[in-house]
Amino acid sequence: MNHISHTQLIDALQWRYATKSFDAAKKLPAELISSLIESLHLSPSSFGLQPWKFIVVENPGLREELRNHSWGQAQVTDASHFIVLAVKEKIDATDVQEWIECLAKTQSTPLEKLAPLQGMIMQFVTAMSDDQLLQWSTRQVYIALGQLMTSAAVLGVDSCPMEGMSPEGYDLTLSLKNTGYRTVVACALGYRCESDKYANAAKARFPLEQVVSVLR
Amino acid sequence: MNHISHTQLIDALQWRYATKSFDAAKKLPAELISSLIESLHLSPSSFGLQPWKFIVVENPGLREELRNHSWGQAQVTDASHFIVLAVKEKIDATDVQEWIECLAKTQSTPLEKLAPLQGMIMQFVTAMSDDQLLQWSTRQVYIALGQLMTSAAVLGVDSCPMEGMSPEGYDLTLSLKNTGYRTVVACALGYRCESDKYANAAKARFPLEQVVSVLR
Repeated sequence: MNHISHTQLIDALQWRYATKSFDAAKKLPAELISSLIESLHLSPSSFGLQPWKFIVVENPGLREELRNHSWGQAQVTDASHFIVLAVKEKIDATDVQEWIECLAKTQSTPLEKLAPLQGMIMQFVTAMSDDQLLQWSTRQVYIALGQLMTSAAVLGVDSCPMEGMSPEGYDLTLSLKNTGYRTVVACALGYRCESDKYANAAKARFPLEQVVSVLR
Repeated sequence: MNHISHTQLIDALQWRYATKSFDAAKKLPAELISSLIESLHLSPSSFGLQPWKFIVVENPGLREELRNHSWGQAQVTDASHFIVLAVKEKIDATDVQEWIECLAKTQSTPLEKLAPLQGMIMQFVTAMSDDQLLQWSTRQVYIALGQLMTSAAVLGVDSCPMEGMSPEGYDLTLSLKNTGYRTVVACALGYRCESDKYANAAKARFPLEQVVSVLR
C-alpha cells in the first residue's frame, strides 16, 4: 500500500476550509467525483448498517430551489457538485435482515453463522426509542460527512459542509417525503474562487492543549 | 500541494476496517500519533465552535478500567493508542465569546467586525433546547471521528470506532463528571494483528445504486 505521509495529511487538512465562494466554471473531473461518492459509499457506520442515502443533485433547477431553502447561499448552485446526506428514519428488523444478507453474500458466510450478530444488532436497535434511534442514525451520517470532507481535502478538492438550510424544504424539493429518508446535512464540492476572502484566512482553532488531554 | 491520487484514496478506504485484534507489540511512531491528534484538532465543526474534548488514554490501569466498561473488548487495552471523544454538554454565551476572541486573535480581526457573526451564532444556539443543543454538538463530534478514521486510513494506521461501551462508566474512570464534558464515542488506533480474521474479509456494502441517487 502506498500511504500518504503525515506531513502531506496535515498540509491537506490545513489547506481545507469551509469554502464560501466556489469557481462555478471549474468542474471536478469524473474520476474525482466518483471517488468522493465512493468515499461516502465506503464510510464506516455502526454495525455496518449504513442508515443513509446520498443524493447527488446535478439538476440546475433543483439546485436553485435548494439554494432558496439555504438562505440563498451561493455554494449550492456554484459548486461543481452538491450532495445531500439523508438519514434512514427508522431501522427495523427488515433493514437488519437485509444487512445480514448482504454480509452473508459478500463474505460467503452461511446466514446461520450470522444469526448471533443479527440478534445482537436487533437487541441494540430495539432497546432505543424511535427518537434515540433517529439520533443515533443521524450521528452515523456525520461520520460519512467527516469521511467525505477529509477525502476531499487529501484529493485537493474544496468542500463546504452545509447545515444552514431547511431540511423540510430540502425533503420537499428532493421528493423525500414518505420515502423513509430525511435530509440531515449537505456538502458542496468543487474548487475555491481565487477571490474567496476566507481562503487565505489563518485557520482558527482553540489551542491544542485546551481540546486534547493526555492521561499518562 | 502534493495531493493523493484518487486510486490511493480508494485503496486506503478499502484497506480500512473496524480492527478487532490489534498487535499489542506494535506502537505508532510519535509523528503518526501526533498527526492523528492534529487531525482531530483541525476537524471541521459547525461555526468552528469545536464543542469537544479528546482524551488520549495512555495509562494502562485506566485502559483496563475502560475495557471493563466496554464489554471487555480487547481493542481498548491492546491498541497502540486509545482516544475518547467527549462532547461539551452545553454551549453558552461564554463559549461563543471565547470562540469569537480566538477567531479575532488568529485572524487579526477587530472584535467589532465579528459582532454580527457572534450574534448569528448566539441566535442559532439559543433557539435550541438543551437536548437539541447536546444532540447537535454530539453530531459535530462524529465529524471529528470521521476525519480521524479517514486520516488514519490514508496514513496506513488501523482504527476501530467504539460505541459499544458505557459512557457513564467512561465518565467515571476519566473523571469527566462535573467538567461540562461527557463521553460520546472512542477510537482505538494502532496496527492490526496478522491473525485478525476480519482483516481479510471482503468489505460488505449495499450496492452503490441503493445508497446513492443522482438527480439529473
